[in-house]
Amino acid sequence: MRLGLDADRLLPIEPTVRAVARRLYEAVADAPILSPHGHVDPRLLLDDAPFADPVELLVRHDHYVTRLLHASGVPLERFGAFEDPRETWRLFCEHWHRFAGTASGYWLSTILVELFGIDEHPDAGNADALFTTIIERLAQPEFRPRALFERFGIEVLATTDDPLDELDAHRALAADASFGGRVIPTFRPDGYVDPEAPGFGERIERLGATSFAGYLDALAARRGFFVENGAVSADHGVLEPFAADLDDADAARLFDAARADTIDAAGARAFRGRMLLEMARMSVDDGLVMTVHAGVQRNHHTATFERYGPDTGHDIPVATEWVHNLRPLLQRFGTDPRLHLILFTVDETTYSRELAPLAAFYPSVYLGAPWWYLDAPDAVLRFRAATTETAGLYRGSGFVDDTRAFLSIPARHDMARRLDAAFLARLVGEGRLDEPSALRAARDLVDAIPRTAWRL
Amino acid sequence: MRLGLDADRLLPIEPTVRAVARRLYEAVADAPILSPHGHVDPRLLLDDAPFADPVELLVRHDHYVTRLLHASGVPLERFGAFEDPRETWRLFCEHWHRFAGTASGYWLSTILVELFGIDEHPDAGNADALFTTIIERLAQPEFRPRALFERFGIEVLATTDDPLDELDAHRALAADASFGGRVIPTFRPDGYVDPEAPGFGERIERLGATSFAGYLDALAARRGFFVENGAVSADHGVLEPFAADLDDADAARLFDAARADTIDAAGARAFRGRMLLEMARMSVDDGLVMTVHAGVQRNHHTATFERYGPDTGHDIPVATEWVHNLRPLLQRFGTDPRLHLILFTVDETTYSRELAPLAAFYPSVYLGAPWWYLDAPDAVLRFRAATTETAGLYRGSGFVDDTRAFLSIPARHDMARRLDAAFLARLVGEGRLDEPSALRAARDLVDAIPRTAWRL
Amino acid sequence: MRLGLDADRLLPIEPTVRAVARRLYEAVADAPILSPHGHVDPRLLLDDAPFADPVELLVRHDHYVTRLLHASGVPLERFGAFEDPRETWRLFCEHWHRFAGTASGYWLSTILVELFGIDEHPDAGNADALFTTIIERLAQPEFRPRALFERFGIEVLATTDDPLDELDAHRALAADASFGGRVIPTFRPDGYVDPEAPGFGERIERLGATSFAGYLDALAARRGFFVENGAVSADHGVLEPFAADLDDADAARLFDAARADTIDAAGARAFRGRMLLEMARMSVDDGLVMTVHAGVQRNHHTATFERYGPDTGHDIPVATEWVHNLRPLLQRFGTDPRLHLILFTVDETTYSRELAPLAAFYPSVYLGAPWWYLDAPDAVLRFRAATTETAGLYRGSGFVDDTRAFLSIPARHDMARRLDAAFLARLVGEGRLDEPSALRAARDLVDAIPRTAWRL
Repeated sequence: MRLGLDADRLLPIEPTVRAVARRLYEAVADAPILSPHGHVDPRLLLDDAPFADPVELLVRHDHYVTRLLHASGVPLERFGAFEDPRETWRLFCEHWHRFAGTASGYWLSTILVELFGIDEHPDAGNADALFTTIIERLAQPEFRPRALFERFGIEVLATTDDPLDELDAHRALAADASFGGRVIPTFRPDGYVDPEAPGFGERIERLGATSFAGYLDALAARRGFFVENGAVSADHGVLEPFAADLDDADAARLFDAARADTIDAAGARAFRGRMLLEMARMSVDDGLVMTVHAGVQRNHHTATFERYGPDTGHDIPVATEWVHNLRPLLQRFGTDPRLHLILFTVDETTYSRELAPLAAFYPSVYLGAPWWYLDAPDAVLRFRAATTETAGLYRGSGFVDDTRAFLSIPARHDMARRLDAAFLARLVGEGRLDEPSALRAARDLVDAIPRTAWRL
Repeated sequence: MRLGLDADRLLPIEPTVRAVARRLYEAVADAPILSPHGHVDPRLLLDDAPFADPVELLVRHDHYVTRLLHASGVPLERFGAFEDPRETWRLFCEHWHRFAGTASGYWLSTILVELFGIDEHPDAGNADALFTTIIERLAQPEFRPRALFERFGIEVLATTDDPLDELDAHRALAADASFGGRVIPTFRPDGYVDPEAPGFGERIERLGATSFAGYLDALAARRGFFVENGAVSADHGVLEPFAADLDDADAARLFDAARADTIDAAGARAFRGRMLLEMARMSVDDGLVMTVHAGVQRNHHTATFERYGPDTGHDIPVATEWVHNLRPLLQRFGTDPRLHLILFTVDETTYSRELAPLAAFYPSVYLGAPWWYLDAPDAVLRFRAATTETAGLYRGSGFVDDTRAFLSIPARHDMARRLDAAFLARLVGEGRLDEPSALRAARDLVDAIPRTAWRL
Repeated sequence: MRLGLDADRLLPIEPTVRAVARRLYEAVADAPILSPHGHVDPRLLLDDAPFADPVELLVRHDHYVTRLLHASGVPLERFGAFEDPRETWRLFCEHWHRFAGTASGYWLSTILVELFGIDEHPDAGNADALFTTIIERLAQPEFRPRALFERFGIEVLATTDDPLDELDAHRALAADASFGGRVIPTFRPDGYVDPEAPGFGERIERLGATSFAGYLDALAARRGFFVENGAVSADHGVLEPFAADLDDADAARLFDAARADTIDAAGARAFRGRMLLEMARMSVDDGLVMTVHAGVQRNHHTATFERYGPDTGHDIPVATEWVHNLRPLLQRFGTDPRLHLILFTVDETTYSRELAPLAAFYPSVYLGAPWWYLDAPDAVLRFRAATTETAGLYRGSGFVDDTRAFLSIPARHDMARRLDAAFLARLVGEGRLDEPSALRAARDLVDAIPRTAWRL
């Protein structure tokens, strides 16, 4: 069955509005890609080794893909490194129709057609031939990571890094005259600020901190090291975006309890709350943009986690409360021009109720782009519809791909540009915006807006 | 005022996409009806008696209809069996405009036009004439229940039954050579697993259980009896979908307290949680598909309940949490291929946040069709939009009518088929799906998908 | 850059459906404005003084506008009365593009074009010229408040008033033969029924109440005074719509504690719950329509509140629960034909889940129009889509502008009429409603429906 890409995909259906959308999209289609938050390994670009095969490239590491195959009855062990990739690829192709209508199906189609020139839907019959086609392409020099980086038009690519990472790969890349790209680290201290994270005590020991004051200093020093190496943001993944005023004596007491592994659940929560506040304070000091990704119950199925580790498809969103939880932080720093606080949710009920109103008052608050499960065409349009009427178009982060799937980066940014064009064109069609204003906004959404929010 | 049915009703408005939708719809319009969950009384088909009058047929037993009339100022006693049906029918006709835009208005219009050939909007002026028209039709043999069953193209119809029901009607129907339909029971044990349900103790006594172990055995035996008589599923209506690990000794102690009517609220909750887990375990054993309908506060207005009983229009949805509540159940059985767990919600905030992510990982979890208050055109499209991008089109239950209004069954299934065609055609129009893929999905949605989910 | 108004703004895009919508809209475009809830000061009309300047008129008092400017980095002091209005106006014009796509941007555009004949987008370059244009217009007699009141076609305008207000302005207006408008007060007792409201004790003293029974009598007497002076409703702003049965002895004890400022949080909550019930009881007695506006965390940023007072842009919505909270009230009065209870939410998750189901059963419950953050085109259409399929078109309040921005009243009502036309035309286009039925509904939505709900 033929697989193609509609040149007008994701644009509105009605012809006159589609024409407006096409003009808006064309004005930004080739703009450089700013990717200020994601999970690509910097060694991919440092080593610049060829990709191994389509399973390694498109299936094994993408838990959006493996989770739906798992839900369809494919055991996760079939994606292991010791499986024959041709067999695994065949399984993927057999289940291809199950991705119809999904975000992954959309990105994968774009990659198959645009990057590999494939023009058939994968199925059991053609799986082997497609495997061969992709393998052959991957052997060519233009499919090496650096060549793709350039071809994709990536201006900035941020990775996600452990606070104690010495950032060797970033420094080597920066020092490599043959690579012109900007690849920057992101400070991600989750395991260092949550006493309930497995290995917390050991991490604090490696940090060399023996007192609460020393611990704060050590974290600030590591942030400084990241800033020196080009970082623009610090990222915080939390179950609840809970900030808490907690005095130093209590914090120090809880810090000791955490190191001794005697902290209780309430103490751990209070400590995390104080540390979210502390991270905001440090952002005010060192200028790192603060991003908060909240509301995901990680590793829902314990047996799968124990056998296959994290990021295996069963991180499930939960309801998230921002107004009360963030209040102590916003009371202190919400109107401080030095703070940029970008909020990401997977609970879309908070778009119109909490997040847009917060971003429409607090100059520090920026609406994070639709994230994870919501990073898909209809969900993105729901986000725009739910937030724009309150907060306008200028209080957001710009698009964020947040991906570990390097090849999907251009498809994702292209999707976002098409959807913004579609949204703006609808407003034009409904007489709520004129086309020159829409054009300005479309351009700002891929340039001035992310550059401002992320201090790029 | 003229009442008609648009041949393209519910299809998208833009002409080229409407044409796609029409092709998709036509491919499935006449497919057999699979109705694996509903509330029709099997005696209706066993007795095959003529329907009495339009009030009996369309108004009195349909609490979607009576509730909106009640909200409009009509006292519920006007729908009593001792009222003159012509008077009640006139009231209904006078208030007909209040159903404009509602799901009930849509189904009723379809029935009035397609089944009774009526071509005027009901109103005070024509109420009497319409009553007479319908009465005359109902006297004809082709309006008897069995004739309609055949005319509607129903392949399977599931009823909802008490665990101690001897299923005489089902057995008589199955034995009746003159009736070719498949009418199957559903095991619905709510009153037997909730210690706070009025009459719990008496029911347990009728079950003949004097110990927790005996109680579990008795339930398993009744399930076995249902399986023998064709049941494919067990249905669970709960306020919260709470599952709990609770050891046997505690469960036994709570069972005794429940029988003695000394159980407290916390104990009752724990017992219900254990029993939801137990029902999943039994489903793993006996293969009955497990359906959970959660999140409705039943009988909100006590005075109405006391006077008119349950199912009188004031069961009101509440917020529902699935991720934490179901976790103990999914930890144990979530990846077991023997379990099919179909989840129904009336809290649509959980579609994209909780249910689609769960169904996109756990092979046991299926997304129940939009249910009750959400079983209407816009709500169904919101469901598809909110779940498909994460879970695709193949992780659902297929359409479920869940109705006690026998005559509305074809109108409801037709609505679902039109809406799926509309949704898929939109994806085609937006270049996200090609028409052959859409056609495959449209066909699977009324055939392979429900047959798989419900083990039909 | 040219600023214009599309004659078909907000109507659906597809041409045949747009034509239907235009016909529906034209049938109601010039209907009188019923404004049964808002915040205009009656002295504006009593004094009939010219408006000072565009900042006073369009910026300073509109916290929808100042909040987004604040979020964009403009300090709130720039909107103070001592600032040069030309400077403030220039700031507003510089940031005009940030209102693109917002509700405020839509209303302001309508006002600039329709009222002031402006045909350019405000920007830094034309700010001064626009200021002059507006100033000149405001000096003309047809821009005085009474002239505008008449030109806007306002039939009824309700204000919001303190229970102890002697309503002098209302009485003077009613007695003024040269003013033909109907301006009615609204009883708003929040500060008199919440023991935690600052100044509660002092207010109770002014009320002259020294016992709980006397307090109830005093409130009833003040309500009677409002009724005598034309009030049709009593309005209740609450964080949660919590009603509680609380016996008289406990209530009296809490009343004394509240006066002595020794009440605790739980006691205050119980007292508020009893008083919400009490207000419903009084509405049953005196016929005042009861409106409840729930779910806003007022004055989120304390430092801003302390410096600039309330209504400065940081009232943030929170999740709201209606089904359990209102149950004690609905148990007692929900089916009493003397009660009209209009519910307003800023948590749109409750539309389909809680509010539409409540309004589809309880004759007393009316769905309040989309309010505050949700009073914008897409949000209004989401409201209609989420509630109509359950509750139909006849269980709502009709549109409510709820504004303190007098000049925006016609733009807001016009927006609502266009959106209702758009919604109804879509149903027509989808074959779910015929045009005569849609026309009847469109007319009823601006006339019979609000007159009924508000007892006008």
